[in-house]
Amino acid sequence: MNFPSQLIEQAVNELSRFPGVGKKSALRMVLYLLKQDISSVSRMTHAMEQLRNEIKFCSHCHNVSDKEICSICNNPRRNNEIICVVEDLRDVMAIENTSQFSGLYFVLGGLISPMDGIGPELLNIEHLITRVKEEGTKEVLVALSATMEGDTTTFYLSKKLRDLPVHITTISRGISVGGELEYADEVTLGRSIQNRIPYKG
Amino acid sequence: MNFPSQLIEQAVNELSRFPGVGKKSALRMVLYLLKQDISSVSRMTHAMEQLRNEIKFCSHCHNVSDKEICSICNNPRRNNEIICVVEDLRDVMAIENTSQFSGLYFVLGGLISPMDGIGPELLNIEHLITRVKEEGTKEVLVALSATMEGDTTTFYLSKKLRDLPVHITTISRGISVGGELEYADEVTLGRSIQNRIPYKG
Repeated sequence: MNFPSQLIEQAVNELSRFPGVGKKSALRMVLYLLKQDISSVSRMTHAMEQLRNEIKFCSHCHNVSDKEICSICNNPRRNNEIICVVEDLRDVMAIENTSQFSGLYFVLGGLISPMDGIGPELLNIEHLITRVKEEGTKEVLVALSATMEGDTTTFYLSKKLRDLPVHITTISRGISVGGELEYADEVTLGRSIQNRIPYKG
Repeated sequence: MNFPSQLIEQAVNELSRFPGVGKKSALRMVLYLLKQDISSVSRMTHAMEQLRNEIKFCSHCHNVSDKEICSICNNPRRNNEIICVVEDLRDVMAIENTSQFSGLYFVLGGLISPMDGIGPELLNIEHLITRVKEEGTKEVLVALSATMEGDTTTFYLSKKLRDLPVHITTISRGISVGGELEYADEVTLGRSIQNRIPYKG
């Protein structure tokens, strides 16, 4: 692309660093910024900088938090015998939205991915092991994506936790609620048959 | 959505003001920001603020520019007898990329849209009329989107320019190059028949 202005080129290059944002979307964002008041643009940039500079991570579960310990870890009504292991805060938000889980979390901050140079040592896994030992956790529910990286990480965690007196579970895979059999992929359908469950009529 | 932190909520709200960015995409952008260095985030916010604060608009064609007069208006090799009227700088960039136009531009900065409260008085149209009169322009090529707003604006411009000794043209509509007839919509196909052109074999 040939830009009519250096300032536009620079802003497009910066904004297209966001995941899922290409040059065309970035240019659309730039046009939006040009139509805003100066105060409105600086409100946006201030929110971005404040986010990066002032955010804290809970020292217990590594989720983002405004305080030293997050509101979930700090809640005495949560069941501290079960820890759900997730990749990032979006997964915590998704699971909290279901209202089906009342235990605590552990946020890895990523998945084991040799291709991206992310080994297990970068994922706070030792802290998880320490927590399981110290808190006498009864169950670790591993809720990671069903991708190669997710499966590798789940396998690694299960190996690390094997010798501890803790139950290791994963979320079930199967046909989504409301989904039709004929449109499901073979692997998912196969797994939903392997992992079939007693019917509670 | 329930956010685990005020800072995250605020940043998601600000970033989702971008066109085409919803809360989920904004949250993805926020996670990206959290993984960046502080210096990398401030490079991005600096580019956004500099863009908004320092951008200039060419006083001749209203396109964005780093100088008082943009590089296209300032180029003595451009044909100043023809003015191409477009909505915004993306259209200028798209037309420049074709290398098929060597005239000058006039950027409206929007389209007439009563629904959004945009009347003709907001679109620099008087300046266009003045330019056509003063520069003795021979042709005004109106290159606006084929939407209701685009057609309304084209009609308004043609009415305003009717009494001046200037040729008014619009870009041709028809089946796109490489397009198949059976997949074209009826209106486009119909127009391509109405506006058929002599075959240059």
